[in-house]
Amino acid sequence: MNSSTTTVAESNAFVTTFDLSPTCSGPLHGLRFAVKDTIDVAGFKTGCGNPTWRDSHPAAVVHAVCVEQLLRAGAHCVGKTISDELAFSLSGENHFYGTPLNAHAPDRVPGGSSSGSASAVACGLVDFALGTDTGGSIRVPASNCGIWGFRPSHGFASVAGVNPLAPSFDTVGVLAQSADVLAKVGLVLLASAPASPKKQPTIHLIREAFALADADVQEALSEPLRRLREIFGGAVRESSLRELVADDAGHSFATWVDTFCVIQWAEIESCLGAWIASAGPEFGSEIAASFQLMEQLDRRRVAEAVQRREQYFRSLDQFVGPDDLLCIPTTPVLAPHKGDPPRRSSSGSGYYPRTLSLTSIAGIGRLPQVSLPIADADGVPVGLSLLARHGQDSLLLEAAKRTEKQVCS
Amino acid sequence: MNSSTTTVAESNAFVTTFDLSPTCSGPLHGLRFAVKDTIDVAGFKTGCGNPTWRDSHPAAVVHAVCVEQLLRAGAHCVGKTISDELAFSLSGENHFYGTPLNAHAPDRVPGGSSSGSASAVACGLVDFALGTDTGGSIRVPASNCGIWGFRPSHGFASVAGVNPLAPSFDTVGVLAQSADVLAKVGLVLLASAPASPKKQPTIHLIREAFALADADVQEALSEPLRRLREIFGGAVRESSLRELVADDAGHSFATWVDTFCVIQWAEIESCLGAWIASAGPEFGSEIAASFQLMEQLDRRRVAEAVQRREQYFRSLDQFVGPDDLLCIPTTPVLAPHKGDPPRRSSSGSGYYPRTLSLTSIAGIGRLPQVSLPIADADGVPVGLSLLARHGQDSLLLEAAKRTEKQVCS
Repeated sequence: MNSSTTTVAESNAFVTTFDLSPTCSGPLHGLRFAVKDTIDVAGFKTGCGNPTWRDSHPAAVVHAVCVEQLLRAGAHCVGKTISDELAFSLSGENHFYGTPLNAHAPDRVPGGSSSGSASAVACGLVDFALGTDTGGSIRVPASNCGIWGFRPSHGFASVAGVNPLAPSFDTVGVLAQSADVLAKVGLVLLASAPASPKKQPTIHLIREAFALADADVQEALSEPLRRLREIFGGAVRESSLRELVADDAGHSFATWVDTFCVIQWAEIESCLGAWIASAGPEFGSEIAASFQLMEQLDRRRVAEAVQRREQYFRSLDQFVGPDDLLCIPTTPVLAPHKGDPPRRSSSGSGYYPRTLSLTSIAGIGRLPQVSLPIADADGVPVGLSLLARHGQDSLLLEAAKRTEKQVCS
Repeated sequence: MNSSTTTVAESNAFVTTFDLSPTCSGPLHGLRFAVKDTIDVAGFKTGCGNPTWRDSHPAAVVHAVCVEQLLRAGAHCVGKTISDELAFSLSGENHFYGTPLNAHAPDRVPGGSSSGSASAVACGLVDFALGTDTGGSIRVPASNCGIWGFRPSHGFASVAGVNPLAPSFDTVGVLAQSADVLAKVGLVLLASAPASPKKQPTIHLIREAFALADADVQEALSEPLRRLREIFGGAVRESSLRELVADDAGHSFATWVDTFCVIQWAEIESCLGAWIASAGPEFGSEIAASFQLMEQLDRRRVAEAVQRREQYFRSLDQFVGPDDLLCIPTTPVLAPHKGDPPRRSSSGSGYYPRTLSLTSIAGIGRLPQVSLPIADADGVPVGLSLLARHGQDSLLLEAAKRTEKQVCS
């Protein structure tokens, strides 16, 4: 663990701290971790960042399966971390519990919804932390805070004991200080062995994804991309959305965002709608606006969105070879400044549509994604992302380690 | 729809009936369906077969995504059907709501937990019904009631608005009167196009699965198997568990059942444990015994079970070619007689270990499975099952239709 001068209190990353010993020795021996407060730890309420939720639900009686796996692999659990309310936000500013510190950019938000987990890692208070990622909730805070973040392929890491948000996209994953720890923990969650690629991967830089990014993000990523090309040579190529999916609509990210949001909002309402209607929870204004937007969705649109999602999933599964990688900026913008939370919308040029343009690729494609803390813009962290084919998580984690050695050094 | 002389009241299949019109015309135009009461229909409580659950949860405010899909495809929803309590049973006898009629074998249980859905279809009251299947809850009642049942590949049909039981195995699927309707509805849920196999499939009859079956089940299946061999010729071959997985332990079904049960029970406790502890629900004695067994699980065993599951999943994914099928009896025994509910255990020669020996293959492998109503033993229905590779659901549904034409005729 890095030496750190930030205290737990200064980080404001934690809901509670405790000391939970490993149940066995294993590959994570000696590592300390924290758990996002949307994931069960026995004996504690899973608060999901909202006091009404906390008050209207009983304490967990058992650990989530993912927590059991980590304890069994030798890691030490030291606390639970702040989440954005019900995990339905990418900002990291919680109306009730405050804003976890973004250690490398203290005037900016850490990103969310795994805000406390990212903060705890970036502040050096833990070696890694569990987060959840439905629409970007691990990848965005990893990018904002300058740490490693891993969203697994959908459906391969157990979400039992993790509060459901939108099951077709929900994943549990990892934030870590190094690619090595990220890979070790990722393999434990996936119950998978390390893999080595059978052949040199083709790395597809998605042209429209880089074009979407702000100038400062593009500039920050230019040197890492140059080194990537230098190291991998002809294996790095520019590809277009036009090659990824066949239909014209899919050549614009607007369609990806709309498809993702229609399904996500419909599923969130399925998971949380009845509770909201019966418990009448108080929300911060940003989250309240998001839920209002969700309730306005015409659910008759869902079937068509699911069709498009499956069509794009299959296209991506065809396009991305078993050893191949996609490469995009994790987010198109720097972490927003604190105190100015972006409002949600599913179209236009606001923060959410632009960010979801990039994060929805993994969501729709069920793809694994790693955000690499590979760059900065005048000290503000900028993440670059690699994605692999659905189910090729081990290869992706291996590629992340290799990139850390060759590009970050 | 078959003409039927059984009334809704006589079937005891329904919790409630109503009339919900399609929201569009589509491929399911003119078909009527029912929904298992573990799946949300807006305005109704999702009772999950247990009065305490019903009383302690608010009404659904929106339809589950799967219900939206069916209404949008032109189908007509006519009611909600009885489920075994919390879907944690294969019997179909509900302590509180009684036993839905097994139309073809009235002195036997319909099987569960999608008991009412299977009954409603077999009684000819609907063309198809939605069920859920974690450990066999669609396949077993389909086999018992002499109808078609489809459990999709894990992770490809939305479970939003479906009460979670064990997320790593939970699926929503279909019970139907014909392979044609089964396939049409399956494709709507999967948002997938029909597929035709690129080459003649190899059909692997799993030797140990047939050997496990009672003599009357084996005998009932001998004629359909003979016709299968006659039609498909050399493409039908006997295969062994030894070819499916490499490790010695996996050559016995006992290991499959233990692996499945450890993960299933751990996940059920994650999903329901806190509610059980806080609401203190009343259960029927069979279900109460199952939950007691669940609570006795040493959760430190979960990590190892997940490892074995993933190892077997990868082995199966290697073994089963993209066009290939596996073939097993759906269950090794005839539907038990009413009034003698089998007790749950995870080892030994009881009803659950033997039945889960066969149903756990799809669970562990994330494989899609169709149970075909292809045989009977002195009038008591016996199902034969085909399974395909993970994600090859369209091909499986097509194969089911072909088999109906060629073997059932």
